[in-house]
Amino acid sequence: MQYKLALIGFGNVARALAKLLVRKQDVLKSKYDITFSFTGISTGSHGCAVNPNGLDIQKALDLVESGQSIHPISSSPVSNSLSVIQHSQADVMFENSPVDYETGQPAIDHVRAALNAGMHVSTANKGTVVHAYQELISLAASKHKKFMFESTVLGGTPIFSTFREAMPAAELTSFKGIINATTNIILSRMEDGESFDEAVKYCQRMGVAETDPSGDVDGWDASIKVAALATVLMDTPLKPQQVERSGIRGITPEMIAKAKSEGKRYKLVASAERKGTAIKARVAPELVEASSPLFGMMGSSTGLTFRTDVLPDYSITVTEREGMKGGPVETAYGLFADFVSIASIVK
Amino acid sequence: MQYKLALIGFGNVARALAKLLVRKQDVLKSKYDITFSFTGISTGSHGCAVNPNGLDIQKALDLVESGQSIHPISSSPVSNSLSVIQHSQADVMFENSPVDYETGQPAIDHVRAALNAGMHVSTANKGTVVHAYQELISLAASKHKKFMFESTVLGGTPIFSTFREAMPAAELTSFKGIINATTNIILSRMEDGESFDEAVKYCQRMGVAETDPSGDVDGWDASIKVAALATVLMDTPLKPQQVERSGIRGITPEMIAKAKSEGKRYKLVASAERKGTAIKARVAPELVEASSPLFGMMGSSTGLTFRTDVLPDYSITVTEREGMKGGPVETAYGLFADFVSIASIVK
Repeated sequence: MQYKLALIGFGNVARALAKLLVRKQDVLKSKYDITFSFTGISTGSHGCAVNPNGLDIQKALDLVESGQSIHPISSSPVSNSLSVIQHSQADVMFENSPVDYETGQPAIDHVRAALNAGMHVSTANKGTVVHAYQELISLAASKHKKFMFESTVLGGTPIFSTFREAMPAAELTSFKGIINATTNIILSRMEDGESFDEAVKYCQRMGVAETDPSGDVDGWDASIKVAALATVLMDTPLKPQQVERSGIRGITPEMIAKAKSEGKRYKLVASAERKGTAIKARVAPELVEASSPLFGMMGSSTGLTFRTDVLPDYSITVTEREGMKGGPVETAYGLFADFVSIASIVK
Repeated sequence: MQYKLALIGFGNVARALAKLLVRKQDVLKSKYDITFSFTGISTGSHGCAVNPNGLDIQKALDLVESGQSIHPISSSPVSNSLSVIQHSQADVMFENSPVDYETGQPAIDHVRAALNAGMHVSTANKGTVVHAYQELISLAASKHKKFMFESTVLGGTPIFSTFREAMPAAELTSFKGIINATTNIILSRMEDGESFDEAVKYCQRMGVAETDPSGDVDGWDASIKVAALATVLMDTPLKPQQVERSGIRGITPEMIAKAKSEGKRYKLVASAERKGTAIKARVAPELVEASSPLFGMMGSSTGLTFRTDVLPDYSITVTEREGMKGGPVETAYGLFADFVSIASIVK
């Protein structure tokens, strides 16, 4: 089947998605009977373009990556994301506009508009899940469309799809893991002798920490992800503010050295546990033993352990390796997987 | 939709499956619109029974678990597995007869008969995958039915379904892991000071090792699983005999002590790697560093790391926990998950 795709947000992740789709177009056709064209693109600062007959995606990538506007490739004038959605006639909209953790906007409006226009949606934008999961899932169901968000936690690593497709009817009673790469890199480097400030500066140089690193080091990013995981996988709405949160600023080099001498190490551990009808969620540094699945996760490696009623503790880990340390390409894979899943359901 | 189920083989795993289906019947109905009845059961030494209108499964469990024949609950006389398949009128056949690693029989004949009779099949029997994967998958496809086998590797842990559903179009270039629990328990106990013989005896007492432990300690079981994984996930037929294999008999307490003093440990590592059109597969003891995802897998914990073209190294680990250490209940969950997946595809 032929799918028309709209890309709302055309930053690193969306461009990696476009390239991945092009790279995988043969296997999509042969194995999944999926063909596609891009019919709408909305960028942050390089204009918008629509063409229900298909845009030249390579041209769009070239223009944006050389700092130019994509306006010339549009078949009709469009000036913002909502009008791109409206005029793209897309079957699937990928929402990757910049995330606003306070409100989830404008991403939530984009998702609403696309679902109301009869499109499926896949997003890497955590704000939509944290602020409007129940509404958007219900809206999607009422339109017989899908709202999907695999990439919002641990990049493109399959978490939501694992529970949806591979672990049917499993009751998740708790989960625990390392879900913020920046703090894990900092703690790993401190174990090798760097100070906190040196390790933060390293992360900033590598582009994995912001100028203000507090979103990572104070545990906010991890809390948002815990909230998204609990909301979806435990079917219980949870706000990031409800997560008991402490960051890694209190972990001294002395504490790390002492732990090391005992064969242990500190990790910023995110967890959630069902307590009756409520969820008790927490992000805090913990001393981890060598026998823990978390012990071996160093640097940008991340992972989660899930406790269910049907299997022994089940862990998913993503280990950094040279040339592939998480990032836009991997996040794009989550959107790609959502798309294939949508197409499989539709067919 | 209503499904008629046939259980060929009614040992620990099949009985755990029957109990799991009964325990989960409400969520199967409400969330997946699945209802079911059992219409055929074939046991090893307690007879056979069929009833296209539904057998009393609790009665069957009670009879077998008190050492009696299930023959009295049958609506017509049946004397063997093939006639149970033929007369059950089942929609799904679960094949859990004892495995024969040399030939894969009689399980392969059971699967053929069920597919030819228009049934879907799910099996925990590794012999069928190792000896007849291509034939059975093709036969299933020609009948528009499914041949599924999630439980054949790592019990009920989702591996095949992860690649099928959650990691579409991912190219698997290599995998590596610990996939035999018995040898991992032995190595873990030797690290705590036991001799090889003491550790083997412990496993025999716990029922996880056979009287002749060579299938585990010489790496045969792991080789069979590697062959199954490579055959399915790398789409390249591989026989257990093609796996370069060495077991753990050569690992001395001295070697283990030396590794421990260096912060490392020995693991029986199973791996496979694509080399052009061929697969290079190996089962052998390896010295593992603390940073490896394999390092923390102790006792009956098992797991696999997958290298693909779309994500950083992706690991799935199953960690033993009190009261849930792998076994029939978890293996049954793989069959259960296959069934829900079949029902989702059919719907």
